[in-house]
Amino acid sequence: MSKLSEKKIIKLFQNRLGNTNFVPEDVESFKIGKKYFVAKVDTLVESTDLPPGMKLEDAARKSIVSCVSDFAAKGVRPIFGIVSLTIPKRLSRSNIESLAKGFQRAAREFELKILGGDTNEGKELVINFSLFGVSEKIVNRKGAKTNHVIITSGPFGYSGAGLSILLKNKKCSKKFGAKAKSAVFKPKCRLMFGLKNKNYFSSSMDSSDGLSTTLNEMSSQSKKKFVVTRMPSENDVFDFASSNGLNANDLIFNSGEEYEIVATASTSNLPRIKKYAKKHRIKLYEIGYVTKGSGVFYKKDGKLIRIKDKGWQHLQKS
Amino acid sequence: MSKLSEKKIIKLFQNRLGNTNFVPEDVESFKIGKKYFVAKVDTLVESTDLPPGMKLEDAARKSIVSCVSDFAAKGVRPIFGIVSLTIPKRLSRSNIESLAKGFQRAAREFELKILGGDTNEGKELVINFSLFGVSEKIVNRKGAKTNHVIITSGPFGYSGAGLSILLKNKKCSKKFGAKAKSAVFKPKCRLMFGLKNKNYFSSSMDSSDGLSTTLNEMSSQSKKKFVVTRMPSENDVFDFASSNGLNANDLIFNSGEEYEIVATASTSNLPRIKKYAKKHRIKLYEIGYVTKGSGVFYKKDGKLIRIKDKGWQHLQKS
Repeated sequence: MSKLSEKKIIKLFQNRLGNTNFVPEDVESFKIGKKYFVAKVDTLVESTDLPPGMKLEDAARKSIVSCVSDFAAKGVRPIFGIVSLTIPKRLSRSNIESLAKGFQRAAREFELKILGGDTNEGKELVINFSLFGVSEKIVNRKGAKTNHVIITSGPFGYSGAGLSILLKNKKCSKKFGAKAKSAVFKPKCRLMFGLKNKNYFSSSMDSSDGLSTTLNEMSSQSKKKFVVTRMPSENDVFDFASSNGLNANDLIFNSGEEYEIVATASTSNLPRIKKYAKKHRIKLYEIGYVTKGSGVFYKKDGKLIRIKDKGWQHLQKS
Repeated sequence: MSKLSEKKIIKLFQNRLGNTNFVPEDVESFKIGKKYFVAKVDTLVESTDLPPGMKLEDAARKSIVSCVSDFAAKGVRPIFGIVSLTIPKRLSRSNIESLAKGFQRAAREFELKILGGDTNEGKELVINFSLFGVSEKIVNRKGAKTNHVIITSGPFGYSGAGLSILLKNKKCSKKFGAKAKSAVFKPKCRLMFGLKNKNYFSSSMDSSDGLSTTLNEMSSQSKKKFVVTRMPSENDVFDFASSNGLNANDLIFNSGEEYEIVATASTSNLPRIKKYAKKHRIKLYEIGYVTKGSGVFYKKDGKLIRIKDKGWQHLQKS
């Protein structure tokens, strides 16, 4: 019995399905005339993706957020969605109403229409959401150029901290606990930020697989070296890590489930992005720069430390 | 704790999501310029949809068939698909390769491209398939006119017989068993029949929710009475039913999981459809006619017997 990592499974499928020139992107797309038709499917599984204490309303919203966030990073406006639910028998009417409320809330928040869907019976709750849109342009993961600046649309580490509080009973102040749990239960999603700034990004990617995975993917597809000079996080994350014997770098780079946009931009476009962020009270982080070479590094005291791809993968052996 | 039927759950969602004018169709669609963008999502759940003895390769194909069949009934050519898998840890590499093989087979069979997908970890196998296409026309469930003929693209009752053999150990001849199990494991799908005859159908619907459900839905949306005068089945199904104490009408009308097209056509278009079916060795069944009024009836010895909507519903109370 072998347990394969998600990457290996996807590789196996790609070989079988003949997608040998496959370049992974945040969304799937195909061109009709001058327009791209864009789609993204995401699945949220009760036993894997629902930490204790998470309301079904929030779970429903989060299943939509994970698709919308990918559209945001590509600069594509979502138009409509389809819900496919697998529901265990034990779910009550009020449970199902809570799910419906979450879908409704997210549909309003992101101004999209849920056209329909289906329900199935199964052993655990599985929420499958498919999102669709049309666009003349898609911002790619590749495209970062030498001397471009690397930015993130918000801080990292809170969702990792939140999960360690919920799953491993880590201790913290009430205030930090609320912030960290909110990052898990009600993650922010940067749709308008992505839509309004798409023309200023040279490359962009949703960060929900983890910051280290995102940076390595963008660096590899752009064929450039990414150098991180500033951590996209805050003191309270470092304090939480040290008081709980956790590695702050791990929380920030390898937790995943932050739905922030990681993008690169030329220094001439950067002021436009900053202006938008300031106006809309988005805390932008300039975390480093793009240069010749390959790999992702953290520059500290003049030394370069390699940041490997250690983001979250389902079905990992360890 | 209340257990809601699929219909009630969908109703609850529709109310919440404000789709009050919602007309259910086999596919979801929206118009861009002159073309419809068409999508269908279907979920296959291990504990509910995989009878004992079903190979994962066939399960993967069937998850695609259930979407393609809806496209077939609408006369829409599928272009690409996305797979989202929820995989339990116990699945081996060869299990996963078997799934990949099934997707590959179906992609070739229906000439569609699987663009990508994702994998998740969960307690049981859940295969979610999303299918996409573009079309200038969609054949609706409504549109049947008085004096139109009702046809089906194949026989009914074999999948119900197959399930009762697999799940309830019903007895039968080897020959019938093979035929019935094949209807469950490797259902036929009438894609080319739907694409080539779409202009001759006045209304059409995929029958996988069960023949009685399909006929009642088409009758209700068309605001016409549907009268069935001939059973779309064969002697071996009636023999199997009587020798096992089963109701043949139940097997034929209420089993579901036949992926046949039920359509209506004018008497002037019928010969064109028949010609195509004959050429491609499809056994067409003319099962009745459309008339003024409402409801679905079986006409026997001059009497009309009501055929209610009793097709398969997940999560039913009984």
